Amino acid sequence: MNRPTENDLVRRIGLAGRWLSADNAAVQLGIGDDAALFSPRRGYETILTCDWFLEGMHFLRDQHPADSIGWKCLARAVSDIAAMGGEPRCFLLSLAIPESHAGPWLDEFLRGLRRAARKLACPLAGGDTTRRSEILMNVTVIGEVRSGRARLRSGARPGDVIYVSGRLGEADFGLQRLRKGRIGKNDPVVRKHLYPEPRIALGRWLADHRIATAMMDLSDGISTDLPRLCAASRVGARLNASRIPTVHIRNQSRLSNSAALDLALNGGDDYELLFTVRPGKARRMPRSFERLGLTAIGEITYQRQMILVGSEGRERNLSPGGWDPFRRSHS
Amino acid sequence: MNRPTENDLVRRIGLAGRWLSADNAAVQLGIGDDAALFSPRRGYETILTCDWFLEGMHFLRDQHPADSIGWKCLARAVSDIAAMGGEPRCFLLSLAIPESHAGPWLDEFLRGLRRAARKLACPLAGGDTTRRSEILMNVTVIGEVRSGRARLRSGARPGDVIYVSGRLGEADFGLQRLRKGRIGKNDPVVRKHLYPEPRIALGRWLADHRIATAMMDLSDGISTDLPRLCAASRVGARLNASRIPTVHIRNQSRLSNSAALDLALNGGDDYELLFTVRPGKARRMPRSFERLGLTAIGEITYQRQMILVGSEGRERNLSPGGWDPFRRSHS
Repeated sequence: MNRPTENDLVRRIGLAGRWLSADNAAVQLGIGDDAALFSPRRGYETILTCDWFLEGMHFLRDQHPADSIGWKCLARAVSDIAAMGGEPRCFLLSLAIPESHAGPWLDEFLRGLRRAARKLACPLAGGDTTRRSEILMNVTVIGEVRSGRARLRSGARPGDVIYVSGRLGEADFGLQRLRKGRIGKNDPVVRKHLYPEPRIALGRWLADHRIATAMMDLSDGISTDLPRLCAASRVGARLNASRIPTVHIRNQSRLSNSAALDLALNGGDDYELLFTVRPGKARRMPRSFERLGLTAIGEITYQRQMILVGSEGRERNLSPGGWDPFRRSHS
Repeated sequence: MNRPTENDLVRRIGLAGRWLSADNAAVQLGIGDDAALFSPRRGYETILTCDWFLEGMHFLRDQHPADSIGWKCLARAVSDIAAMGGEPRCFLLSLAIPESHAGPWLDEFLRGLRRAARKLACPLAGGDTTRRSEILMNVTVIGEVRSGRARLRSGARPGDVIYVSGRLGEADFGLQRLRKGRIGKNDPVVRKHLYPEPRIALGRWLADHRIATAMMDLSDGISTDLPRLCAASRVGARLNASRIPTVHIRNQSRLSNSAALDLALNGGDDYELLFTVRPGKARRMPRSFERLGLTAIGEITYQRQMILVGSEGRERNLSPGGWDPFRRSHS
């Protein structure tokens, strides 16, 4: 009798949706029709991206607060828009949940989702809901970028300086702390894992001023993601281990340098930007953008190899150790 | 050693993708970057829709041929675009499959998907792949419709004539036959279940000429879908049972009239169009569009009730008996 129907769920999410899209003129028609209507801006290209967010693989039902799942499912998809130099405009949510989660869990999930949608200026435009024993999500984000300004993975050239934003490995370190259960939601690295912030403003700046020659976001760890950028650009890379910005915590003795480097190379979920800059422009690069650190960590090479130069000058091949669902389970 | 990595899979799907998008100028950048770029046409609005397609719920791993799963996951999402009066432009595929299905099964799946993409003029623009014990899909379709011409669910007014295209219940009847295992892939009703054809040309015609006042596609059965259209339009409906076009098979004695009516009212997956037309225009409606039957089955009423008038003139309430994952399992 009181089991929710699909119509009920659509209505409940729709209420949140109306709330979200109140101020957004781009979305003409939201939840409740066959599809959503979106008015593209003249002189802009549309950016399209979609991302799985699956229980057991991307989050754990019992360890991740529902509001973090709501926040993160949107934030990580928006990060792909930021990585192109664009701005998000609206999103579609496909949600499958067990009946047991259609009550307070859903409310908390929607709270996190709504908070992210407002913070990222990206209203809900539509979606699809169904029942499933597992919690499954797929988020599509529609963004826009000024025509011709999108930053691709394929634009890096030999000699370009390789940059990253922020510090790498923090989110994975946060996940480790969360799993040990010792640390609360307010610990900065735990927050970075639970509530990542896509680098929209930085991405736009690097695209609008044509500063980056190639760009992508770091979702699977730089040891996995940098080879993707290099493959698209048909180049190689040489990284200086000592320059890579690693996790910075109060009691640094708890984390060895090599463990911090391993996290920085292989940790997933950072959603920082990885980008390349011509040497001439690199000389004038600021050290930060809106208080977010920008660090030169190496350079693009003709040789299509991935080399990591250790602090003692020794070179080794950088092999992908990041998150790949087809290679190993998430450790 | 030979286990496929995510990069491998992206490459394999990407090869199919290049093939698909060869002739399409709308998609600037396909598989392999953070996101896809799409150039919207001037004077058009963008239509956005996404659909789950999940093992055990929307298809069965052992009973549905992989090429049908590929065809149908796209066709059903494109049907939402047709239901707005638009044309599909490109799609994103999120795919989760077990390792055991990354070989011949994936090839056959991509064959069906590619065939649908060509037939529907809707190339692959991007997506997300991952490994999972279950086969999960989510398809996002991006379409376009001339500004101001999109047909919504909310435009029906009392007195409007209610129409459907084609015959209802065929796909569900095809599923029943498929499950009994007696009939092959070439049986017309089985084909309608396995390879549905979204009514893009009809939808465009009804929208471009402003013939339909409201429109949606029939995915869950008219007893579930018509109340959704009526709720959006704040009206009711009165259907004539005897006018509803039901399954038509060679040996009609095998299916009673009441069973055929039940299938027509409650059967899912037909992907025919349900639309309403002002009485003045209804008088000039053709009986078919490009050999697809168009049938007046009732009218929109002030009273916000769903009434079914039987052949003997008796009235009863039409209650939703269609597919709703939150109410019952698919029978």
